[in-house]
Amino acid sequence: MEKHAIIVGAGLVGSLWAVLLAKRGYAVDVYELREDPRQAGFIGGRSINLAMSTRGWRALQKAGIENKIREVAIPMRGRMMHSEAGELTFQPYGKEGQAIYSVSRGGLNIELIQIADQYKGLRFHFAQKCLGVDLRANTVHFEHTGTGERRSVQAPLIFGTDGAFSAVRRSMMKLPRFNYSQQYLEYGYKELHIPPLPDGSHAIDENALHIWPRGQFMMIALPNIDGSFTGTLFLPFEGEANSFQQLQTDEQILDFFRQHFSDSIPLIPGLLEDFRNNPTAGLATIRCLPWCYEDKVLLIGDASHAIVPFYGQGMNSGFEDCSILDELMETHQDNWSHIIKAFNQDRPKDANAVADLALRNFVEMRDRVADPRFLLRKEIEAHLNEKYPEDFLPLYSQVTFSHIPYSHALAEGLAQDGLFDRILAIEGVAENWRDNPEVGEVFRQWLREKGR
Amino acid sequence: MEKHAIIVGAGLVGSLWAVLLAKRGYAVDVYELREDPRQAGFIGGRSINLAMSTRGWRALQKAGIENKIREVAIPMRGRMMHSEAGELTFQPYGKEGQAIYSVSRGGLNIELIQIADQYKGLRFHFAQKCLGVDLRANTVHFEHTGTGERRSVQAPLIFGTDGAFSAVRRSMMKLPRFNYSQQYLEYGYKELHIPPLPDGSHAIDENALHIWPRGQFMMIALPNIDGSFTGTLFLPFEGEANSFQQLQTDEQILDFFRQHFSDSIPLIPGLLEDFRNNPTAGLATIRCLPWCYEDKVLLIGDASHAIVPFYGQGMNSGFEDCSILDELMETHQDNWSHIIKAFNQDRPKDANAVADLALRNFVEMRDRVADPRFLLRKEIEAHLNEKYPEDFLPLYSQVTFSHIPYSHALAEGLAQDGLFDRILAIEGVAENWRDNPEVGEVFRQWLREKGR
Repeated sequence: MEKHAIIVGAGLVGSLWAVLLAKRGYAVDVYELREDPRQAGFIGGRSINLAMSTRGWRALQKAGIENKIREVAIPMRGRMMHSEAGELTFQPYGKEGQAIYSVSRGGLNIELIQIADQYKGLRFHFAQKCLGVDLRANTVHFEHTGTGERRSVQAPLIFGTDGAFSAVRRSMMKLPRFNYSQQYLEYGYKELHIPPLPDGSHAIDENALHIWPRGQFMMIALPNIDGSFTGTLFLPFEGEANSFQQLQTDEQILDFFRQHFSDSIPLIPGLLEDFRNNPTAGLATIRCLPWCYEDKVLLIGDASHAIVPFYGQGMNSGFEDCSILDELMETHQDNWSHIIKAFNQDRPKDANAVADLALRNFVEMRDRVADPRFLLRKEIEAHLNEKYPEDFLPLYSQVTFSHIPYSHALAEGLAQDGLFDRILAIEGVAENWRDNPEVGEVFRQWLREKGR
Repeated sequence: MEKHAIIVGAGLVGSLWAVLLAKRGYAVDVYELREDPRQAGFIGGRSINLAMSTRGWRALQKAGIENKIREVAIPMRGRMMHSEAGELTFQPYGKEGQAIYSVSRGGLNIELIQIADQYKGLRFHFAQKCLGVDLRANTVHFEHTGTGERRSVQAPLIFGTDGAFSAVRRSMMKLPRFNYSQQYLEYGYKELHIPPLPDGSHAIDENALHIWPRGQFMMIALPNIDGSFTGTLFLPFEGEANSFQQLQTDEQILDFFRQHFSDSIPLIPGLLEDFRNNPTAGLATIRCLPWCYEDKVLLIGDASHAIVPFYGQGMNSGFEDCSILDELMETHQDNWSHIIKAFNQDRPKDANAVADLALRNFVEMRDRVADPRFLLRKEIEAHLNEKYPEDFLPLYSQVTFSHIPYSHALAEGLAQDGLFDRILAIEGVAENWRDNPEVGEVFRQWLREKGR
């Protein structure tokens, strides 16, 4: 088979995947709806941050740009919770030295496009709107967004990396027996900008992901390299109280912030302007199956599995798709019939698991992180992990700091919930867990029941 | 508001709903993709049968054609199971006198169109393909399938009764935060024709729904008024054994039937022809939310909730939609803002429940009906229902012979599963249940736990 692929979508996953294919000697044509971000700048001009973790780094390493990105990534070592009274509580994500990394989406995308563009057989085509795919004929139809000129291109392999609203997937939806689901949360989100201090430094601790957990809603903030933070308010669209619907006038918005996020008001000087000008966006989980059409067309990343952002795994899981496919290319020596079959068979269960994990983590972030028993569990988890590193790795670490398949991590997380139901029921555990031998006994009993 | 509605789709639900609106003084324009079935005959010319039950009859009664349809409906009083050896076992659906009714889809549709056409303010427009709905502008776009002529029509109310592949729903999918899911079974189905005997009578008992349960697959047959039966084979699409994929040659098909459905071979003289000529169709469950756009556009029936056929509730649930809307019109005195809001708020949970019930019943029909313990449970259920009519109505009867909301029925069915786990665990219950006081004790204890 001719080693030639079309990639639809030059976002993070598409441009990374282009690099990995080019590295293996494929001629690659990458078509992207937007203008070239190297000239046009990144859409909106606002940095939307990502939380890069272990799975993402591995893919960047494969692409050869891990070190370059590490230089501009800001480590976030844990969560900094802000109470209504403005008190701060820090909860580390992992062990000493472990962190997730705040990275600018636009900056990373441009880096990936730049590295990709160095490959001789790789060409980018910008401002190309995908009109659809003729699956049987290996043909993709595009229209230039500026000139309106249409063209149809062919290749033996077509990859849809065109995101949650994928045009490639839309063509696949007409296939018989295509399973598809899009589910929105009742919540929307709105970005709010926290500028740097006058000296250019960060206004709050830059090495943490800040959370204002308020039960049914929350605000978060991630650091940017320019000293600013990107704040994001997550709030129900509708409802009698504490909803976007109820925040119409300046006074209502300010009252709401005074009541729930008072320590953030001085941090967000443009609060009312941001609130009015920035859109209220929705949060969807998208699942489908199959991810492929025969051995010709394959969806990767958000195009086949878009998830809510609460585990910071959207980009990481899309990058992991690329790593896995790269390894399958190695294993199956470019036999795409085998590669696509194996990927479509094994990967969707992990994508489903991380979708569920992300939904689950929304409750954790907006509600449970404010619960002393949750923080107690996190402390005991860290202790068990230190004492029994072979036998206990907390769920968060499995997802964030390992390459354990998401579906295994989710199953283990449910088992860990059972363990902590028992540990937290021990009398006086909050005070005596360090010395109470019952904690270790319950743990070892749990291990035995799991057959370890 | 002008009392004028557009209905997209003149299938069973659309034509019934047209009658109910016309009865309340609405001007109604009904647009249908197909030709007028009164002239063209019903597509394919083959009767696809329906199982009309209590919810469906009520809607027909509202439309004033219950008696007319009863005349051509064939009561099926229970399931007739055919074992591999050809032995028959009968299991009644309900109490003496209760039955579900085999009705021809085409015949019923024509009756509904005829009754609707008698209303002065009601007009049918056939051969009109819906191209989409401009939701904000209350406008629907159609193209005549013969002439290609396009037209756009407006009304304050637009109803999408255009089935599982609804064009109205497709326009709503572009709305922000539209939840949607289409899930296919791994099974396909194929129709096989069982002709009448030479004297015109039915070849097998006409007052039963015949099932050949074979664990992972099954065949069923429903009687038609002309003495024939419509047989349907449900089989996995793919797989090493017992799948459509494996049935390619005449010999493979015949071997399969000889092994699993030997008593049906003489009943289906055109087996090989039917198998080759009839399509293998898929089985989807479709869910969405919301079902409406503002107080202007509403989906009804399969367009918002298509289900698999195994509980015989597809048409019945669509008809029940119409009954409920008719009652809401009464309650809210044609205030469509209230009617649509109430319907969209209350009805989807019942549609979800009947979707789950239908999936669940596939396992029951293809597998559990062949299990002596299942038949034992059915006998004890009938006994409990007779002895405690106020306190125990079997799930099947709730769904089929009552107007209890599907979601309540499903919850009660799950509770009944718990009851029978306990009853069937009683020692020797299969032999002694009629005399063993423990059965009644377990039942009364279960009632107490439910707080009755």
